[in-house]
Amino acid sequence: MHLLSAKGFLAAGVAAGIKQSGNKDIGMLVADQFATAAAAFTTNKVFAAPIAVGRKNIRHGVLKGIVLNSGNANACTGKQGLDDARRMCALAAQLTRVDADLFLPSSTGIIGHLLPMDAICAGIRAAAADLGSSEEHALAFTDAILTTDMRRKFASARIKIGGKTVTLTGICKGAGMIGPKMTVAGPRQATMLAYLLTDAAVPTKILRHVLAQSVDTSFNCVTIDNHMSTNDTAVLMASGASGATISDRAKTAKLLDALNDVSQSLAQQIAADGEGATKVLTVRIRAAASEKDAQKIARAIADSPLVKCAMHGNDPNWGRIVSAAGMCGARFNPDRAKLTLQGTVVYRAGKPLPFNAAAVSNRLKEKEVIADLHCGIGKSEATVWTCDFSREYVTINADYHT
Amino acid sequence: MHLLSAKGFLAAGVAAGIKQSGNKDIGMLVADQFATAAAAFTTNKVFAAPIAVGRKNIRHGVLKGIVLNSGNANACTGKQGLDDARRMCALAAQLTRVDADLFLPSSTGIIGHLLPMDAICAGIRAAAADLGSSEEHALAFTDAILTTDMRRKFASARIKIGGKTVTLTGICKGAGMIGPKMTVAGPRQATMLAYLLTDAAVPTKILRHVLAQSVDTSFNCVTIDNHMSTNDTAVLMASGASGATISDRAKTAKLLDALNDVSQSLAQQIAADGEGATKVLTVRIRAAASEKDAQKIARAIADSPLVKCAMHGNDPNWGRIVSAAGMCGARFNPDRAKLTLQGTVVYRAGKPLPFNAAAVSNRLKEKEVIADLHCGIGKSEATVWTCDFSREYVTINADYHT
Repeated sequence: MHLLSAKGFLAAGVAAGIKQSGNKDIGMLVADQFATAAAAFTTNKVFAAPIAVGRKNIRHGVLKGIVLNSGNANACTGKQGLDDARRMCALAAQLTRVDADLFLPSSTGIIGHLLPMDAICAGIRAAAADLGSSEEHALAFTDAILTTDMRRKFASARIKIGGKTVTLTGICKGAGMIGPKMTVAGPRQATMLAYLLTDAAVPTKILRHVLAQSVDTSFNCVTIDNHMSTNDTAVLMASGASGATISDRAKTAKLLDALNDVSQSLAQQIAADGEGATKVLTVRIRAAASEKDAQKIARAIADSPLVKCAMHGNDPNWGRIVSAAGMCGARFNPDRAKLTLQGTVVYRAGKPLPFNAAAVSNRLKEKEVIADLHCGIGKSEATVWTCDFSREYVTINADYHT
Repeated sequence: MHLLSAKGFLAAGVAAGIKQSGNKDIGMLVADQFATAAAAFTTNKVFAAPIAVGRKNIRHGVLKGIVLNSGNANACTGKQGLDDARRMCALAAQLTRVDADLFLPSSTGIIGHLLPMDAICAGIRAAAADLGSSEEHALAFTDAILTTDMRRKFASARIKIGGKTVTLTGICKGAGMIGPKMTVAGPRQATMLAYLLTDAAVPTKILRHVLAQSVDTSFNCVTIDNHMSTNDTAVLMASGASGATISDRAKTAKLLDALNDVSQSLAQQIAADGEGATKVLTVRIRAAASEKDAQKIARAIADSPLVKCAMHGNDPNWGRIVSAAGMCGARFNPDRAKLTLQGTVVYRAGKPLPFNAAAVSNRLKEKEVIADLHCGIGKSEATVWTCDFSREYVTINADYHT
């Protein structure tokens, strides 16, 4: 499926010289007409200027589009940073002949540096002049949002609504400073950035509802370093270009299912592309006492450097996993728990279980590793995606200088 | 000062073949007569067999001593593990002619393996036969508790009580799986192990009180990997051999001060010897809204892999520090905060501050780095000690196989 197969949207990505590498660093994503829209933002108390502007501009539930840069987060940049984020919107709006508050700005990159506004403005002009709906345009946009990412990340889903085909497309970035806890702005409130597009017509209220639901079971369940960013953002825009309208509960449920598929695929792609990652670790908690407990246990395991290093070393060191479950404050009884690593039960009921360590170690070399912990004390579940911890991770993050 | 200058105690450490390296792995620490005692244990719901036995044996507030092994944690070992921990105590007690419940057992090492009891028992016999009060005996005990530690850790303090000299000596281990949250057993409740000895005569109730206070501002404030162990233990024993008695509030305060000095020195030694560490990072939070908030902020910074990698790379990347403060749920206002790195203010009031990055980077190469975050919104403080995150950390923990 074509990357921009959700109809009614145009994209562009250009290199404006913000990144030292010379890679693309300015992107625009624009609705042909207008799009209803909802957005979820970081809950970090230290939030970037584009987050402040985005929270305000998303309020009325309609957007013309997104204007963004990579290579500089425009975070901790004071009043000048706010002015710069507003200026990005104003220029994008002027070039597409709409009001400035119909654009949502995004920035990603280093914290604490003022944006090079001459380069930014030249980039926005070039991007606006290049907007298009081809695969190349979508790929250029996808490239323009990357920072330490090694791979482009996108996913699509199709559903039928009232006889019409509705497409959902998602594009995102994120490889480091990944531990988003986003809430939807508006009634309530990731540097991961995710742009979710559909060509159904969807009222803002429904967009907010499905985005909130979906973010909590996708982007908010991925952790690379458990470091919530100042710039995390997920935006869902609906163009209506398919002619289908999401109006009732059944259609909303269909849209939510498709959105979950796309968002969870993107979240897993983020884990797979985590800084220095060689594999994805899916931590699945079952039969926990409550959903909150299940989440706590999953995150304690996924965020333990000891567990992540063991996974890097293909080591079936279940003691690190079980002890992480016990340390997080959630209700947990080791005597009732069962841990399955890559399909092999390695721990049950509080005592060591004989298993073929060499065989399990061999299976841990796969690109996707599943740790399934059955707590045996309730009915609640949670899934969190993370990656292993490698020497390369340290190299990337010790040498990425300010 | 002599390592065992707290009078009234004997120590021994021998190699019993539990560690593949052939290093010392059985230790005993025994009071000449008896010692009043208090202990703090891990709050992990997955706790090792020696913790279960130790919690029971510490109840009456008197101990003959400690019997321990390294190289195997005796954790997740079921009923057999409990029997083995009790057998260690019983044998040590028999050899010193006391009841079995007057010994507190400790184990540290790999999780999920049964103790090699033949080797353990032979080691305990050899240790008991070798007990002594010389510097060599104390050093042998100190060595017997180490696992991935590169250095011995000990500290001492002296105070005057009623004209008599009272000595406080502490010996501890810990380099990985360090994120202790211990509580004192008895009225309430680290694999770090810490043994704190004094030759004052101290009632158990006072020992529990000062240990609880001291643990919260020392061992519970050190984090290497934020992974609370199944075996963390701190024991405080008082022999009375100095002839001084701690009886009133003023004397208790003096003892607590000395205990804090010793415990904080040991906690810093743990951070300095963290797996793969090249430096200690002291995170000092000031002017926070509450003590809980100060602690949360300090830990969020100290546990961020991004911050720890930046410190490894000598990178004054203050954005990672300030964003960690904002993500932990504590009250925090970036516009009121001020961050000082190695004496240089690098961030103030929400916007970038010009500073000599090369000079600060140079100062970050020192063995002790201080990040001082003044929150500007309250009066509460907290200090947490951690270390940097290196490629060596990954090597140690990816290759330490089960």
